[in-house]
Amino acid sequence: MKKIVILGGGFGGVYTAIHLEKQLKKYRDSIEIILVSRENYFTYQPMLAEVVGGSIDILDSVTCLRSLLKHTSIYIREVTEINIDEKTVTLSPNFSHKDLVINYDHLVLGLGSVTDFRTSPGGLAEHALPFKDLSDAIALRNRIIDVIETAAQEPDLEERKALLTFVVGGGGFSGVEVVAEINDLARKKAKSYKTIDPKNIRVVLVHSKDRLVDRELSPSLGTYCGKLLQKRGIEILFNSRLTSATPNEAIVDEKIRIKSRTIVSTVPSIANPLIEQLNLEKEFGKIKCDSHLQAKNRSDIWSVGDCALIPKSPSTPEEYSPPTAQFATRQAPILAHNIKSSLLTGKRKTFTFKSLGQMAALGHKRAVAEILGVKLSGVIAWVVWRFIYLLKIPGFSAKFRIALSWFLDMLIPTDTVQLKSKPKKGFDNLHYADGDTIFYAGDTGDYLYIIVKGKVDVIKEDVKITTLHAGEYFGEMALMSDKKRSATIKASGSCKILAIQKEDFDVLMTHFSDLKDNFTKTEIERLNNAKKRVQGD
Amino acid sequence: MKKIVILGGGFGGVYTAIHLEKQLKKYRDSIEIILVSRENYFTYQPMLAEVVGGSIDILDSVTCLRSLLKHTSIYIREVTEINIDEKTVTLSPNFSHKDLVINYDHLVLGLGSVTDFRTSPGGLAEHALPFKDLSDAIALRNRIIDVIETAAQEPDLEERKALLTFVVGGGGFSGVEVVAEINDLARKKAKSYKTIDPKNIRVVLVHSKDRLVDRELSPSLGTYCGKLLQKRGIEILFNSRLTSATPNEAIVDEKIRIKSRTIVSTVPSIANPLIEQLNLEKEFGKIKCDSHLQAKNRSDIWSVGDCALIPKSPSTPEEYSPPTAQFATRQAPILAHNIKSSLLTGKRKTFTFKSLGQMAALGHKRAVAEILGVKLSGVIAWVVWRFIYLLKIPGFSAKFRIALSWFLDMLIPTDTVQLKSKPKKGFDNLHYADGDTIFYAGDTGDYLYIIVKGKVDVIKEDVKITTLHAGEYFGEMALMSDKKRSATIKASGSCKILAIQKEDFDVLMTHFSDLKDNFTKTEIERLNNAKKRVQGD
Repeated sequence: MKKIVILGGGFGGVYTAIHLEKQLKKYRDSIEIILVSRENYFTYQPMLAEVVGGSIDILDSVTCLRSLLKHTSIYIREVTEINIDEKTVTLSPNFSHKDLVINYDHLVLGLGSVTDFRTSPGGLAEHALPFKDLSDAIALRNRIIDVIETAAQEPDLEERKALLTFVVGGGGFSGVEVVAEINDLARKKAKSYKTIDPKNIRVVLVHSKDRLVDRELSPSLGTYCGKLLQKRGIEILFNSRLTSATPNEAIVDEKIRIKSRTIVSTVPSIANPLIEQLNLEKEFGKIKCDSHLQAKNRSDIWSVGDCALIPKSPSTPEEYSPPTAQFATRQAPILAHNIKSSLLTGKRKTFTFKSLGQMAALGHKRAVAEILGVKLSGVIAWVVWRFIYLLKIPGFSAKFRIALSWFLDMLIPTDTVQLKSKPKKGFDNLHYADGDTIFYAGDTGDYLYIIVKGKVDVIKEDVKITTLHAGEYFGEMALMSDKKRSATIKASGSCKILAIQKEDFDVLMTHFSDLKDNFTKTEIERLNNAKKRVQGD
Repeated sequence: MKKIVILGGGFGGVYTAIHLEKQLKKYRDSIEIILVSRENYFTYQPMLAEVVGGSIDILDSVTCLRSLLKHTSIYIREVTEINIDEKTVTLSPNFSHKDLVINYDHLVLGLGSVTDFRTSPGGLAEHALPFKDLSDAIALRNRIIDVIETAAQEPDLEERKALLTFVVGGGGFSGVEVVAEINDLARKKAKSYKTIDPKNIRVVLVHSKDRLVDRELSPSLGTYCGKLLQKRGIEILFNSRLTSATPNEAIVDEKIRIKSRTIVSTVPSIANPLIEQLNLEKEFGKIKCDSHLQAKNRSDIWSVGDCALIPKSPSTPEEYSPPTAQFATRQAPILAHNIKSSLLTGKRKTFTFKSLGQMAALGHKRAVAEILGVKLSGVIAWVVWRFIYLLKIPGFSAKFRIALSWFLDMLIPTDTVQLKSKPKKGFDNLHYADGDTIFYAGDTGDYLYIIVKGKVDVIKEDVKITTLHAGEYFGEMALMSDKKRSATIKASGSCKILAIQKEDFDVLMTHFSDLKDNFTKTEIERLNNAKKRVQGD
């Protein structure tokens, strides 16, 4: 029994499995196809932005892997290790403490890319919402509903404006699509609140070039995109970058601070970190492949999609396939054929593909598209967009559900139900910029804070009484005595802070007696210092 | 401006707000209606079991509060304190660290009930899934999908059987409805896996009486229920109680142990703990009300639904309304009228109501019902069930969506997409019974464990080398050195254990130097002891 193991449940991995199933139909008893995916469903990413806006249902953009792949062994696990010398893949435990090790004859790496915040001066990893998969889309939709519900009851105008401000970083396809849906949802939902003035809603798109979708679309369509979004009330900051974030602000070019509770980053992505550890030829963090989609100098390792560096055509070996769904789905049948050739007989195929076109939906029944060189925009492009994606989405029942959702969306208004999961426990990583207030005297004591990097000032009645540094903690007094905060804490320069919820703090205090002694000692010291200061006045 | 504050977004609270809006239509400028709810939607609970089975969509059983209540101020917050002397209610912070305090002229307590595990010897609070709200229903559906996906790839037969065993405690309405849906979903989904033998699927219902739904339905219908579920392959343990649970087992009557990864408890519930602290006349933890739904001796406090003790009729003051949706929805208009009378003028109404009937769906197009004394069962009862609930669910678009889902469910099979939220960090509370293995030598080191209550044996090569007691921890060695577990740990008697994930353990070690010293010291000691033992051999 030969084993083909595919890692990754995105476009590259899933379409490879679909084509392998078809091409190896006669060899089911001698060749096993295995797919490892983090989720039990395949996400049709071009539809994700519509989940945020609500014009399709939450589950409409996904299809169960099991129903797409009837003859593949599917493992819903995290990959923890790939060993190309021993030809094994290790998967994380589920419901037990045992890793699962599977061996392979051929390995297909379709692990995609992950968001990379390493170049940010700080705060994006902690406070910007990512926008890559279904759980991101649901989380973003819930956040928008949450800030609007909260804004409706917020007495302070400044805070209300911050709650109603949305900042998106990156004006490529996904940035443009998601900012359009955020804008539509926020403005539509806010209408049902008498207490919200639509003038206080602010939606900002930050893009590093002077034209949107500059890499994907022609200049005229990119310009059209920008004009259309501006007409709908979206502010666009061109030639700017979303550089960092705090719990309360988006920071652009390290100088412009925008008060906001909803920051979305669609920009930078790098190949999956699992790839990094592999002893394979790489460039830009991606696996170098030949036109047969085989890793350089490796007859048993193949790669597809965003984590692979594949020539667009054998005649242009230095020009690589862009990281798009279109290319991944076109690479998949070639890859499946070549693995079949390796296992059985037959000539290999080479990958060569010219893009058929590009499309982006802009909400509100508008889109832009460039298909076989023809440029479309507005309502026509939007109709074409829906029609093409409906044809392309895999599975009949998915097509049916989406078509129905689109139809119903015209008839009945979408409900804005917020799907909260049970409150999370654990530690939060926070990033603050210079002068930010972490909490005010009089606030409720809900967290213990530990300074990981940088320093903070402790302020009582407008006087700075001390400065705390990395490794020190604060906020324990209100937690230990269940009182309100006795001082205001402000970041002095940019700093990174770890926050531990009151509930977890209580657990730690109960079970680690050393820690409790430690905190009690600090509290007594700080109270004594406070007394001395009062006496010294 | 007078303020009526309603606490709770269940049947009692929401229907009271609906009726207040109607009855106080002319007084919108002088009387404000405020509703405080944890979620921004109203859950139509009789439909929840169908969310588990998948015959309706995830959001079909809920309606956005905003669309039901257009003239009510809605606060989506947790209630943290009720002060009936100062007439204020304190709400938890959201996006800030400030509590929100609202004052009231009239207060309506519709806080419902919460699950009570205080009578269990242990483990139910930690390991049994609750079944009360939408997030419970989604979590349960996801668990069923998860265990089946995992079972399909599990090589060990015993472990596979445990993954495919489902135990439900409580044979009242919600227990019966949910066990029927679990059984349908598990058996249907398992069919798509060649590696799963349907004979290994086991669904068990544990009920404390000798007949199901004994309190709600007549003996003949209760018996019919039991027979029908048994025919579908559900095992029923009559005259038994689900008394405790561990991560791997359901324990019945403290002696029968059933290996299972999915344990659901639908049994005991008590009034909301916020009620406990109030200086009001109470019985069974509920607020004693008169037939006007007013709290005893309090002209500004009213109560409705499951947290209130309300006479069924003024003529039978000792017979109380049962905690059902039907009663809560009938109490609401009387309550609304009486508050209006208090604020304006008019005679008060008294609550008196006889149940119209009871119904329960049993999955697979079957139900039981008792309506105005007429007993129905089977397909007819099922059609009546659907028809009546469709009429009763509030909001036109909700009715439409559910009817459509039911229709589609007959046409296209439901997809079993598993909606995982991002992995949770934090602490887990675990309960083990005597002899349970916490981990085996050779397992992956993923948690640090602290013994909260009881003791555990440390076993190497089948020899017990030591016993650890409450306050001691274990498992740190594999975490600190990234190795596999070096010993097996077994519970000696029932014990409670706190588990801290590796990731959080690393954070603690990095930031609390005292703690690190502590762990390092223990590790050296334990290694030395191990050496001594080897030398002593």
